[in-house]
Amino acid sequence: MFTYLLPHVEVLDDDALATIDRGWRRLLAEIGVSFDHPEALRLLRAAGQHVEGDVVRLDPEFVLAQAALAPSSFTLQARNPAHDIVIGGDQAAFLPAQGAPFVRRGGARRDGTLADFADLVRIAQHLDDIDSPGGLPCEPNDRPLDSRHLDMTSALLKLSDKPIMGGQISGDAARDSIALARIALGARFADGASLFAVINVNSPLHFDGRMLEALLAHAEAGSAIVVTPFLLMGAMAPVTIPAALVQQTAEALAGIALVQLVRPGCPVVMGSFLSNTDMKTGSPGFGGPESAIGLLASGQIARRLRLPWRSGGGALTTSLVADAQAAYEGTVTMTAALQAGANMVMHTAGWLEGGLTTGFEKLVVDIDILRTLRAVLTPLVVDEASLAFDAHDEVRQGGHFLGAAHTLTRFRDCFYRPLLATTENFERWTRNGARDASERATGIVDGWLAAYEEPPLDAGIRAELDEYVVRRRRELGD
Amino acid sequence: MFTYLLPHVEVLDDDALATIDRGWRRLLAEIGVSFDHPEALRLLRAAGQHVEGDVVRLDPEFVLAQAALAPSSFTLQARNPAHDIVIGGDQAAFLPAQGAPFVRRGGARRDGTLADFADLVRIAQHLDDIDSPGGLPCEPNDRPLDSRHLDMTSALLKLSDKPIMGGQISGDAARDSIALARIALGARFADGASLFAVINVNSPLHFDGRMLEALLAHAEAGSAIVVTPFLLMGAMAPVTIPAALVQQTAEALAGIALVQLVRPGCPVVMGSFLSNTDMKTGSPGFGGPESAIGLLASGQIARRLRLPWRSGGGALTTSLVADAQAAYEGTVTMTAALQAGANMVMHTAGWLEGGLTTGFEKLVVDIDILRTLRAVLTPLVVDEASLAFDAHDEVRQGGHFLGAAHTLTRFRDCFYRPLLATTENFERWTRNGARDASERATGIVDGWLAAYEEPPLDAGIRAELDEYVVRRRRELGD
Repeated sequence: MFTYLLPHVEVLDDDALATIDRGWRRLLAEIGVSFDHPEALRLLRAAGQHVEGDVVRLDPEFVLAQAALAPSSFTLQARNPAHDIVIGGDQAAFLPAQGAPFVRRGGARRDGTLADFADLVRIAQHLDDIDSPGGLPCEPNDRPLDSRHLDMTSALLKLSDKPIMGGQISGDAARDSIALARIALGARFADGASLFAVINVNSPLHFDGRMLEALLAHAEAGSAIVVTPFLLMGAMAPVTIPAALVQQTAEALAGIALVQLVRPGCPVVMGSFLSNTDMKTGSPGFGGPESAIGLLASGQIARRLRLPWRSGGGALTTSLVADAQAAYEGTVTMTAALQAGANMVMHTAGWLEGGLTTGFEKLVVDIDILRTLRAVLTPLVVDEASLAFDAHDEVRQGGHFLGAAHTLTRFRDCFYRPLLATTENFERWTRNGARDASERATGIVDGWLAAYEEPPLDAGIRAELDEYVVRRRRELGD
Repeated sequence: MFTYLLPHVEVLDDDALATIDRGWRRLLAEIGVSFDHPEALRLLRAAGQHVEGDVVRLDPEFVLAQAALAPSSFTLQARNPAHDIVIGGDQAAFLPAQGAPFVRRGGARRDGTLADFADLVRIAQHLDDIDSPGGLPCEPNDRPLDSRHLDMTSALLKLSDKPIMGGQISGDAARDSIALARIALGARFADGASLFAVINVNSPLHFDGRMLEALLAHAEAGSAIVVTPFLLMGAMAPVTIPAALVQQTAEALAGIALVQLVRPGCPVVMGSFLSNTDMKTGSPGFGGPESAIGLLASGQIARRLRLPWRSGGGALTTSLVADAQAAYEGTVTMTAALQAGANMVMHTAGWLEGGLTTGFEKLVVDIDILRTLRAVLTPLVVDEASLAFDAHDEVRQGGHFLGAAHTLTRFRDCFYRPLLATTENFERWTRNGARDASERATGIVDGWLAAYEEPPLDAGIRAELDEYVVRRRRELGD
């Protein structure tokens, strides 16, 4: 895991924070949030909130009191305890891109398959930079829709021993993933959060029935709930960043308050995913300055609320391929997420095409970006020894440091060693095929997959997982 | 020009700054700096510094007192007073890549020519993002070496009316550029700095004769002198960043002290260019985390010394083409330069291949990066109106903001509009030729050149410039 040791970058002053605070309070109290689920409405009504149809107007003080029941940081358990991670505080966890129906691999774009899904889980398991494979690194389109979640959770638990995301597109998916995680983690399951679920708000100000079904199931099981407003300004939010921040805070807190009614103390994460519509075309835009500013502000708001925070991005981009656009848009949002102090960075690596595609080559690009930024955010040690006066005394005016004693004792690890970036000169680069970064990345993916080792899994547990999947697949009619 | 309104990002605490302060003092006092020029040595000896051969050991207090003679900010005059720029304080000026022998344009790399040089000057003149074309956006290899500087300064003064860099590879080049600028600016020339010169140190701790000849000529004429240590750690500096920072500060201050002996109060800029050697291959590396950390620290050191600061980068990269590597390395150094508060950002756009190539397509990529980062660094206005409560009141739960009154009055300019980045969906992008960012950039370059307008120039001045060039070319034997 990565620990933040430098001060975060902040863009809001106290006045701005107070104005945003007034804004979300008014939104919850006067406009309210709709919940498309009777149990959610029942819980909120019983807690004294004003329910009219499916619209609930919430008391801001109640919402804050509920949010205060959640831990400001918690451990997310992995099948292998050595891979447990901490969500919150000064810690950052990194997850690959999630949710894409397509993959781009070796120059071609096509429907994702379970084989792609498995390879992405293997890569997430292999890389120390990645703390969790998440739950949906791409959509396995070749599997039947009703039971696809079984293939996914089972593959996640077998191919990786890092913490995973549970099913969340329905109550069935949620409950099945909980059952499978319970088998895999055994007695440890009950010790804390053993799954997490990302519950997207159907913004503006609406939670749909299937998401609420998953929220309720996961909250009952004590999974960590990442309540994430998905805001494209101009579509699901107004076109001013402060308005989107107010809406994001109101929606996230409404969901978090509900989680705490189901299970007081349940770990939650304040989610954010704030970008904008391209107003010329109506298409979604990702990776621009609005996302970056939104991230920096969101981090401040989450810290003020003492809640762990998931950043929307990651290395976001609307680019179709792992080109210059993909890299600069991705670097801009990733830098903002890290400088804002994100605790859980989803879509760290592989995101393309506004999230429609997981790119294997883009994943390599993004890992090099992540490693570079982690190095930038590592405090510089400045002491007398670091000044290397002896080296200057040895080399003097007009000399060269390559052979200096100071260099010779440090040359192996004195600088960051890039994963993908080349320092080849033009002649050597041309001789080696004149390949750009995206072309070179394919070989790195192959190397990772070759180096991957499947983590050990007790044969009894494996059989139990398989039995569960076979039985449930039959019950679901696939 | 861009004005910094947000706090700078700082990575050094007071202890670290004090340690670095002790370091450069010791380096100047105990090791010293060599100056390969009798006039420089005479001036320093006369000022009471300890000269032994060509090595001068400098009293740190003397050096600081000399540096204090320089203005903390100054105006750099342009041929067109509307294009004067301020160097220092909270201002940032942006210049394209400088010094490359090669150009890459439309997919091919070749020797730069005067035609390429002229096109790059036209682009710098056309773009509001760029405050000065500099002086050497590429090397015009098709012109005779001895009189090439005449072609360059003359093209700069005719094709642009923004501030320019003078000749600096020799005393002749410096004096000719001063004479030409004097013709172009007329009586205004004497009002302040009407040229700037980048004087690179031959690090470690050495100023060579030709650079000193140019420094002396420009200082006498009152040009702004940008004293720039060029440090690749592992080659011209030790392999620890603090040691490089100490060396950079010592070298820059030594040059600045000399400038102030020539002409007290002469405008100067503290230069920095700090990167590292790839220790596996011995090749220079650019755009990695060490450059970014070095930039953030350098900004702090320059502010402490109350000197305007030129950042080394810019959008640096070792990539050969405008690919993902070029974009993420460039974004990382450009972000650091801006967050560090650089007053003069050289190599803002077009840098490729460790500076060996100016890429026309890379220039487009970098301008989109620059515009994005400028937007990120623009303070967010958070007031009641920005919260758009009325829009929420209109749209309510589960609605859509595209048609909301709040959106309709703001949609034209509510978000950053990318220059190069596309939000096309896969089908449209494929129909449009499936072109990556680098391929799309070529058309943008063509558009800029088509839109370029040559700034007016008095016919008498033009004739005088031409006469000077013809006479001097004859004298130089070309």
